[in-house]
Amino acid sequence: MRGLLVGRFQPFHLGHLSVVRTIRAQRADAPLILGIGSAQASHTADNPFTAGERFEMISRALAEAGVDHCEPVPLFDIDRHAVWVAHLTSILPPFDLVYTNNPLTRVLFEDAGFRVEAPALVDRVRFEGTSVRRSMVSGDTWRECVPTAVATYLREIHGPERLRLLALHDASGAVGVSR
Amino acid sequence: MRGLLVGRFQPFHLGHLSVVRTIRAQRADAPLILGIGSAQASHTADNPFTAGERFEMISRALAEAGVDHCEPVPLFDIDRHAVWVAHLTSILPPFDLVYTNNPLTRVLFEDAGFRVEAPALVDRVRFEGTSVRRSMVSGDTWRECVPTAVATYLREIHGPERLRLLALHDASGAVGVSR
Amino acid sequence: MRGLLVGRFQPFHLGHLSVVRTIRAQRADAPLILGIGSAQASHTADNPFTAGERFEMISRALAEAGVDHCEPVPLFDIDRHAVWVAHLTSILPPFDLVYTNNPLTRVLFEDAGFRVEAPALVDRVRFEGTSVRRSMVSGDTWRECVPTAVATYLREIHGPERLRLLALHDASGAVGVSR
Amino acid sequence: MRGLLVGRFQPFHLGHLSVVRTIRAQRADAPLILGIGSAQASHTADNPFTAGERFEMISRALAEAGVDHCEPVPLFDIDRHAVWVAHLTSILPPFDLVYTNNPLTRVLFEDAGFRVEAPALVDRVRFEGTSVRRSMVSGDTWRECVPTAVATYLREIHGPERLRLLALHDASGAVGVSR
Amino acid sequence: MRGLLVGRFQPFHLGHLSVVRTIRAQRADAPLILGIGSAQASHTADNPFTAGERFEMISRALAEAGVDHCEPVPLFDIDRHAVWVAHLTSILPPFDLVYTNNPLTRVLFEDAGFRVEAPALVDRVRFEGTSVRRSMVSGDTWRECVPTAVATYLREIHGPERLRLLALHDASGAVGVSR
Amino acid sequence: MRGLLVGRFQPFHLGHLSVVRTIRAQRADAPLILGIGSAQASHTADNPFTAGERFEMISRALAEAGVDHCEPVPLFDIDRHAVWVAHLTSILPPFDLVYTNNPLTRVLFEDAGFRVEAPALVDRVRFEGTSVRRSMVSGDTWRECVPTAVATYLREIHGPERLRLLALHDASGAVGVSR
Repeated sequence: MRGLLVGRFQPFHLGHLSVVRTIRAQRADAPLILGIGSAQASHTADNPFTAGERFEMISRALAEAGVDHCEPVPLFDIDRHAVWVAHLTSILPPFDLVYTNNPLTRVLFEDAGFRVEAPALVDRVRFEGTSVRRSMVSGDTWRECVPTAVATYLREIHGPERLRLLALHDASGAVGVSR
Repeated sequence: MRGLLVGRFQPFHLGHLSVVRTIRAQRADAPLILGIGSAQASHTADNPFTAGERFEMISRALAEAGVDHCEPVPLFDIDRHAVWVAHLTSILPPFDLVYTNNPLTRVLFEDAGFRVEAPALVDRVRFEGTSVRRSMVSGDTWRECVPTAVATYLREIHGPERLRLLALHDASGAVGVSR
Repeated sequence: MRGLLVGRFQPFHLGHLSVVRTIRAQRADAPLILGIGSAQASHTADNPFTAGERFEMISRALAEAGVDHCEPVPLFDIDRHAVWVAHLTSILPPFDLVYTNNPLTRVLFEDAGFRVEAPALVDRVRFEGTSVRRSMVSGDTWRECVPTAVATYLREIHGPERLRLLALHDASGAVGVSR
Repeated sequence: MRGLLVGRFQPFHLGHLSVVRTIRAQRADAPLILGIGSAQASHTADNPFTAGERFEMISRALAEAGVDHCEPVPLFDIDRHAVWVAHLTSILPPFDLVYTNNPLTRVLFEDAGFRVEAPALVDRVRFEGTSVRRSMVSGDTWRECVPTAVATYLREIHGPERLRLLALHDASGAVGVSR
Repeated sequence: MRGLLVGRFQPFHLGHLSVVRTIRAQRADAPLILGIGSAQASHTADNPFTAGERFEMISRALAEAGVDHCEPVPLFDIDRHAVWVAHLTSILPPFDLVYTNNPLTRVLFEDAGFRVEAPALVDRVRFEGTSVRRSMVSGDTWRECVPTAVATYLREIHGPERLRLLALHDASGAVGVSR
Repeated sequence: MRGLLVGRFQPFHLGHLSVVRTIRAQRADAPLILGIGSAQASHTADNPFTAGERFEMISRALAEAGVDHCEPVPLFDIDRHAVWVAHLTSILPPFDLVYTNNPLTRVLFEDAGFRVEAPALVDRVRFEGTSVRRSMVSGDTWRECVPTAVATYLREIHGPERLRLLALHDASGAVGVSR
């Protein structure tokens, strides 16, 4: 039976990789679904990368690290928390264990009868999406926070440049000229 | 002809009950539609309870208080203010009077030719959704702000526990691990 | 605990009334939710009346018949069968028994652990939505197939005229000039 | 005050042009909104062209014919007939007269208090969208049914080839390999 | 080939008019599409006017100013930045040049291979949507910031009154009584 | 670089397996994305199985057959053909080759500049989704048309029973009692 780990992976960093390694080691015979959350989002300061770009980051990072039996799946948000678990179970293959540190995710899955575990987080200060994105804008040391393959890929797609442009964008929510 | 009162009822408190009683007393022959607003929302700090849970709170509270001829109806938000009144009139039985203290609701219904009245609010400081929810998180005196039947029901469904968990949840908007 | 009966009620006819009466008699202490299905639909040959108009038909017919403890609720279709039960349980108050003759509805609720019963149908040939609608177009004897209060209401809203106009409408699905 | 003519214009043919000419001649001082219906649809046998392609056809045809004061506007379908008029009035500039031969469009606008007129149709057998599309598949005489500018444009975008390919497509509704 | 200028035009002010004039003068032979962004929004403090009202403002202002060959088109937001350009190109006639000062709009169109230019802004302090709206609430000198025809129209539709009412509305996002 | 094969896989049969084997053999170094089309659909005669169930069928069949480097991804339909390719490229990792026998899929991807190949079909009469589903209803020889692992799984989830029930369901499109 599979496990399920849901994240936004904006971008996929060493904290994510560490969690995935640990889970895979604990249940070597259970494939791990990597749910790419907020799959519809991209090109915002908090969600700069498309689900496809995040899928590619994960693929390259896991290949580099020699971690297998992971299955990335883009997951679209639905704005109905009360049916979110039913939504996921209808589009994913059977899973029996959910890994999350998110209180809402925990309560929703536990209410639906799932077993939920909190993966141990490694050096949460450095390996945290918000700080990695901030570091990409300011030109700092983000490269040390992501797997080498992800750093290479982010350079290929001009990730830091995109983040810097998005940081200029006013937070109006709408695309377009908004004078 | 019916009246219409729209609220989110998160949860249904004594202020709501007072308004309903007053309206029913003023027009004894007119059933009152209780529109449960933002029906799609649940499991957030501002909208902790599902529309179904709110429907049940209302049912129990009105039965306890002996108020009848009220009709709860879940109402989903649409993000098109300009068609909201047309949306409501198409799914509700005919109504000729709208009760609201909300300026936007007032302007939309008045522009559509409806009669709008502002129900008198009772002790708005204590009987106000935001403060009741805050009080449920901090373990305070929320029980005194809701009908007894609602207090009982909220204990049954572990309402305060849910609110405390949701207060831990970061405000990312998305469900999932979001490190 | 409540029961749930879902129908489209296009229009609410004597067959529906008979089913509701029987259910109410069997479980006198259990309110019955009358889910008005396909609430978003109206102004088509198969779904001529708005959810609001159907709500009004039901109210008048049940008042006339002296049937109480029924709660009409408009239900919007979602095109995700696999999450339909989760959707309904999140917006309705608790129910423990579902009445349906529809195989899909039965399988979805039974898979979710609900008790399902098939209500006995009365004279299905005459009391059947499709034939009532057809009879409204051809000017036949539809009045005998619906409660008197519904017949009166349908005349008030010019129901037969609307159905005759819609029968002229080509089945293009889209509103507009479609030459 | 403007007039409104809604059509799908798949493609814009001489029957459409004739109607537009007549309307413009009748009310020379009133601009005419040309609502491009089912704007979301394209690449199907019944809706082969995108809203943008239909916009361009209309522009070129009206420029060629010297008809001015027409304003093409893409209109997305909503599957809520009961709020369709409210939807249109909220996104279009004010209009006081609707031109349609469609019974549903007529009933919806008349119920909302609009004046509705049926434009005279010219040679409906030849100038009718379905037959023009069929003729494009079979290689027949479609060029004689559309304005010269539209014929030129349809050749530029390989319209007949697209229609022939779509005619091969099974009517499954879904894009993809569907064996 | 056309140009494209996307804005929310809440309301259409002299800064917008100046940009439109300049663009039309630079490419006299190229019609200019005026994309009315966030067309679904209205009746909020940031988006007070419907797309239809904004369409009318633009029409009157351009007629007054004698600017022609502009084509207003309501554009609905989609919450998928990654497909936004594909969305626009499918509903608009062909365009080859995009005018924007918005970094996100720029990056999305440039990534799709479009030529993008930043129109020169005139007196951005005075001619800026947010300040015009604020001035309408406080009763200040907004009339000097919009074309005369827009000032007249805004008085006709009681625009300042609407803005003042909306300023009273709490920012809950949901319509309804939200105590 | 990856390849992409989109199908509905209702269910995953030997024809699908043969195509996958051939593609994997032709480009051994290129992972193959298996897009599970119409992911939102289930519990209908044409789309009986959820995306999750189809994901599981594919996983078991490929494990049994020893085919690796395949990545199943649920794909939701969007009713906008003109933006479908942009939608897919935004949620999938990069791919350079699309396998399809579907004319619409071919034209959409070719117009977007993708290389498209038609996979050779094996014994299309027997190995075709519609006939396999029909055979599951009539109790025939469907087991010979699917991989052994799929036959086992379909028995586990009572697939044939579900199909037989759905065959009883009238094609009203709506869930619910529809008398």
